[in-house]
Amino acid sequence: MTIQSAELLVTNGTVLTLNDRDERIENGAVAITGEEIVALGRADGFSDWQVGRTLDAGGGIIMPGLINTHTHAAMTCFRGLADDLHLMTWLNDHIFPAEAKLDREKVCAGALLACAEMILSGTTCFCDMYLFEEAVAEAAKHAGMRAVVGEVLYDFPSPNYGPVEQGFAYTEALISRWQADPLITIAVEPHSPYLCAPDLLCRAADLARRYEVPLVIHLSETENEVRQMVEKYGHSPVAHLAELDVLCANLLACHCVHLDDHDITLLRQFDVKVSHNPESNMKLASGIAPVPQLLDAGICVGLGTDGCSSNNDLDLFGEMDMAAKLHKVATADPTVMDARTMLRMCTIEGARALGLGKITGSLEPGKRADLIVIDTDKPHLTPMYRPESHLVYAARGSDVTASVINGRVVMADRSLMTIDVEKAMRAVRRITAEIRG
Amino acid sequence: MTIQSAELLVTNGTVLTLNDRDERIENGAVAITGEEIVALGRADGFSDWQVGRTLDAGGGIIMPGLINTHTHAAMTCFRGLADDLHLMTWLNDHIFPAEAKLDREKVCAGALLACAEMILSGTTCFCDMYLFEEAVAEAAKHAGMRAVVGEVLYDFPSPNYGPVEQGFAYTEALISRWQADPLITIAVEPHSPYLCAPDLLCRAADLARRYEVPLVIHLSETENEVRQMVEKYGHSPVAHLAELDVLCANLLACHCVHLDDHDITLLRQFDVKVSHNPESNMKLASGIAPVPQLLDAGICVGLGTDGCSSNNDLDLFGEMDMAAKLHKVATADPTVMDARTMLRMCTIEGARALGLGKITGSLEPGKRADLIVIDTDKPHLTPMYRPESHLVYAARGSDVTASVINGRVVMADRSLMTIDVEKAMRAVRRITAEIRG
Ligand SMILES: [Zn+2]
Ligand SMILES: [Zn+2]
Repeated sequence: MTIQSAELLVTNGTVLTLNDRDERIENGAVAITGEEIVALGRADGFSDWQVGRTLDAGGGIIMPGLINTHTHAAMTCFRGLADDLHLMTWLNDHIFPAEAKLDREKVCAGALLACAEMILSGTTCFCDMYLFEEAVAEAAKHAGMRAVVGEVLYDFPSPNYGPVEQGFAYTEALISRWQADPLITIAVEPHSPYLCAPDLLCRAADLARRYEVPLVIHLSETENEVRQMVEKYGHSPVAHLAELDVLCANLLACHCVHLDDHDITLLRQFDVKVSHNPESNMKLASGIAPVPQLLDAGICVGLGTDGCSSNNDLDLFGEMDMAAKLHKVATADPTVMDARTMLRMCTIEGARALGLGKITGSLEPGKRADLIVIDTDKPHLTPMYRPESHLVYAARGSDVTASVINGRVVMADRSLMTIDVEKAMRAVRRITAEIRG
Repeated sequence: MTIQSAELLVTNGTVLTLNDRDERIENGAVAITGEEIVALGRADGFSDWQVGRTLDAGGGIIMPGLINTHTHAAMTCFRGLADDLHLMTWLNDHIFPAEAKLDREKVCAGALLACAEMILSGTTCFCDMYLFEEAVAEAAKHAGMRAVVGEVLYDFPSPNYGPVEQGFAYTEALISRWQADPLITIAVEPHSPYLCAPDLLCRAADLARRYEVPLVIHLSETENEVRQMVEKYGHSPVAHLAELDVLCANLLACHCVHLDDHDITLLRQFDVKVSHNPESNMKLASGIAPVPQLLDAGICVGLGTDGCSSNNDLDLFGEMDMAAKLHKVATADPTVMDARTMLRMCTIEGARALGLGKITGSLEPGKRADLIVIDTDKPHLTPMYRPESHLVYAARGSDVTASVINGRVVMADRSLMTIDVEKAMRAVRRITAEIRG
């Protein structure tokens, strides 16, 4: 008999695997060595294993870390700067002037604070689009988080790279610098069809294809955007991308609020992935994405918070709750977006949306060990009939007690191992006077 | 010069008074003696006061406790028992069979757990409708919470009091037993126009009028209810109550989802108060109450969670966030239900809705000291441009660190002074096997 061993054993919890059969293991444990899950099973089955470190879930829930498929991490700098405004007022009078003051250092500070918030609320992986993305990659790496990051590309000059020519060069340099990294994936990220000319969109798609990296874009977020695109190109934003041969399985389309049936057919046909951002879409009154319809069509949908200046937090537990309830009332059908669907959207489907479905998003031997522990010994999670229900409808980020990313314990007992939280908060507070102007 | 003194000084925080002018005091403090607030002002103004106990807000926010205008506290027993179902399936196959197993002891256990959850998430006052309400009054009293409670009255026999005759007697006995209590107010609570015959409704209204206590009812929650009422009585539920002379300023109408213009005119005319329960209405797919319209009409609207089996928590911070975002997207107007409106709805307007506007809901000298402290030194509440924004869009119940109700510290450093939380959780866990059946 071979002696079995693991460097880390996360044990004494209900394990939700989120695998294809949604297997649940009562009194379960997950064994980890290096970056990988080596075994899962009943906790007592590991009693004769040689284990380096043990993380006790205290009878709570052990599940895959949550995946935020769309955010602008550094916008933590603008959290609560301006709310309850029309989109154009909010952008033109508050966000754009504030963003004009950004630099690499501020983006780094904002992104690191976002990582702290995300880990503390159960997120282990995020997809980011913003300026100075090298700083975001470095913040994520420092935090020990898995991330897909890409520099935003658009027709006008960027405060980071200048003309878009250099934006492509910057993106290629990022791809080459991070290509072997176990945590960071670089994506090509044209902002949107309305801020990117057809030529830019085609070049971006070519670049993503050439390097086999994700292509990320904002798509059909507002009614106004759709109207503008139809006037200018005679097509909806989705059909416009189809015309340009940009739709593909590596494309992650964020928002997708205003879609017609033909748009949905196109998204399905090209296996485009969708990031659903209900809180941001609600707060900015953009509309309600037809997510139950997308799911019925077999389209892969992940969940995202969008930037926390239009949310105003990065807590995916709250986002699951909001999404489930929003679509029930919007469709007048309480059975849609059930707890199981929401949990999968926020884990394995999110991973698939980012092209990471083979390595994360579920707890299975051979996958990277990205998991969280939830303490259920609290009044608002008592009693416990079905863990899935509590995770979607009652739990919040503050109930997460531990986080393991790529086999490394990045948070235990709500203390971050990788980030000095006080310092990260001070760094962002220091720049708010300047942002407020 | 007289020496000034206070038994309790809550100090070193930004004080949001929620008074008529929404005054905010930076570096403020609230002085309390007995049940009452005796003074508020800049913290340094209290340096020469004789103070019994000091509660340090650590630079966070000091504000009125939140007010839950509609719940069924003991339904904590059924939290997560059944979700994602059509209303009638949920009620008939899950909730009603579970409720048939209730008794005084179970309601007491469920209500006490609810009080623990409510205090821990910043609620200081709630309005309850259920069975065995004497047990709820006792649980609230034990917890040190302010509460309006009333036994549910309907046409069929109750597991508690039997025929409705005895329900009225039970209600009168409650009123007389609790009339001098500083925390507990008894209300008369007919379930709804569809479960209560006209005679029951009129008698309930008379009883409330006679004792000058609140009258609480479920009203126009679902489309189906409105259709049934129109078929049976030729009127909408609101117009039906108007016909019966039941509409009055002491009436709290819960839900009010499906209203026509005439209903709104009637509610305004009789100064009826409304309890808005967005999460429950969303989760059960009941619909979206026309709250911005009610506010425009000058109707007093408070916020409520409804029972946590259709929510599934009692966190009013999440409820404020959900309500604000829901109405923005529903009206396509991001300026409605702004942070200030939401905070008032959850404090002073909630107090007014319960007939307690003169004694609680804002921080003013002479009012009862019902306040909470929020720790803002956390990543998800950093940076801080405007406290109101964070309270609605980013804070959660878990950010509340202290709670004072009627001058008494019931929670400090997230420890409850009045409830043994472990024992309260055990008591509810013990009865779940029986409920599951
Ligand atoms: Zn975005
Ligand atoms: Zn109710």
